[in-house]
Amino acid sequence: MKKVSFQGEKGAYSEAAAIQFWHESIQPVPQKTFKSVFESVTSKISEYGIIPIENSLTGSIHQNIDLLLDFHLSVVGEIIMRIHHHLLVNKNIDFSDIKQIYSHPQALQQCSDFFEKHRHIDAVPMYDTAGSAAYLATNRIQNGAAIASLQASQDYGLHVLKKGIENNQQNYTRFLIIAKSPSTPKKSGKTSIVFSTKDIPGALFKAISVFALRDINLLKIESRPLQSGPWKYWFYLDFEGTMNQEACCNAINHLGEITSFLKVLGSYPKGKVVN
Amino acid sequence: MKKVSFQGEKGAYSEAAAIQFWHESIQPVPQKTFKSVFESVTSKISEYGIIPIENSLTGSIHQNIDLLLDFHLSVVGEIIMRIHHHLLVNKNIDFSDIKQIYSHPQALQQCSDFFEKHRHIDAVPMYDTAGSAAYLATNRIQNGAAIASLQASQDYGLHVLKKGIENNQQNYTRFLIIAKSPSTPKKSGKTSIVFSTKDIPGALFKAISVFALRDINLLKIESRPLQSGPWKYWFYLDFEGTMNQEACCNAINHLGEITSFLKVLGSYPKGKVVN
Repeated sequence: MKKVSFQGEKGAYSEAAAIQFWHESIQPVPQKTFKSVFESVTSKISEYGIIPIENSLTGSIHQNIDLLLDFHLSVVGEIIMRIHHHLLVNKNIDFSDIKQIYSHPQALQQCSDFFEKHRHIDAVPMYDTAGSAAYLATNRIQNGAAIASLQASQDYGLHVLKKGIENNQQNYTRFLIIAKSPSTPKKSGKTSIVFSTKDIPGALFKAISVFALRDINLLKIESRPLQSGPWKYWFYLDFEGTMNQEACCNAINHLGEITSFLKVLGSYPKGKVVN
Repeated sequence: MKKVSFQGEKGAYSEAAAIQFWHESIQPVPQKTFKSVFESVTSKISEYGIIPIENSLTGSIHQNIDLLLDFHLSVVGEIIMRIHHHLLVNKNIDFSDIKQIYSHPQALQQCSDFFEKHRHIDAVPMYDTAGSAAYLATNRIQNGAAIASLQASQDYGLHVLKKGIENNQQNYTRFLIIAKSPSTPKKSGKTSIVFSTKDIPGALFKAISVFALRDINLLKIESRPLQSGPWKYWFYLDFEGTMNQEACCNAINHLGEITSFLKVLGSYPKGKVVN
């Protein structure tokens, strides 16, 4: 079985995404931090790592972009997953029994409409969503519930009392799969790169022109705030096509001429969206 | 005194940023959600609102970009603030007394090196940083501390036991000031816009060319994940110059010709960086 590192406890959304990505049994390897996900793949403890890279509500996770720069690993895949927050309880617990609901503050906030409707229930912040499910199960809590993933309900033998209690239905997280070696697709796919330009007018225009001149479609672009790294100014960019295609290689070579830093993070098949 | 709405409790980093922005006494108006910050400015409960728009470690706060699109308010200023996490305690408490440290999970994580060094201390997650300071003060906790802002220590009469216990010194948050009416600077400044293009090769290249052709410098660009809005594809962009400058107005008119949606969020003076 593939060993896959992810940040969080068993039942985390990252673990659920990994299972959806491979569509088969994997051996989940929980890690405390994102950095230790990268370290465990580097040291071959796991074959793969899975990391969230952006969320449709909260934006890009710059910390993981930084780690992609710091470590010599390749992006080999992606998956986009709708984040459903479910209300989980121990067996034989009714909704009327519930006095407290445990979860990560971000999950609690994303379900604030639910708490508005049920004002007698207290929202209790915890470290993470899966951790709140584990707490509920381990301590056999009878008057509480947790907000977590379907995966967490399976991992901890909890019952899904209410499905999808999040306010916003447009909550998607994009995860990247990382490995020690690149596995560039033979045919179609996309490529993620990071580069920095000098802080002069038109620098970004020139950088983007290397793609436009070759009819290469851009899928994502993001500049990084000035204070946050060793470069004055840098960009994270996804484009359509892989490093096995001549036009893309030419664009990257051209880009290398006009940037002060350039790193290809990897080419990989476009990920499916799991609703 | 200016009434300024912000999300969170008194002592939140947003309140500290507002005080730094105006350099004078303001009347802080705490709000439960970001949306209610926008609502309170719209309904003239407050003259101004202050919202975090991006953090150097965690990226852009898309939720607030969405609210800038939904509400008819203008961006009139910005300030960039280094986020210092301080260890706060009630008076006459020594470090050896501390058994628990309360804060928002993100703040606790950003101080994980501190907890590694002091393994006998438990990290206890709470709703927000200022709320943990309020809890400490209200309940006169003798064996605990909170991780929060200097502002929170002043608001709740707490003592700063240790300064700046965060792992990463590059933790900056950029805040925007919003108001009912635009106040475009006469001289220099920057402008924030949002636009959407069709999902065709070269669309972004054409959009950016309207600035490059007029030697207008781009300061930030970010595309938004596909799933997250009513448009297939959109961009948030900051450029150097204001809507009082002819070249900028021409660029915006030109951009209007080639985009399917365009909104100018506001022109404002470049904000200072507070360390």
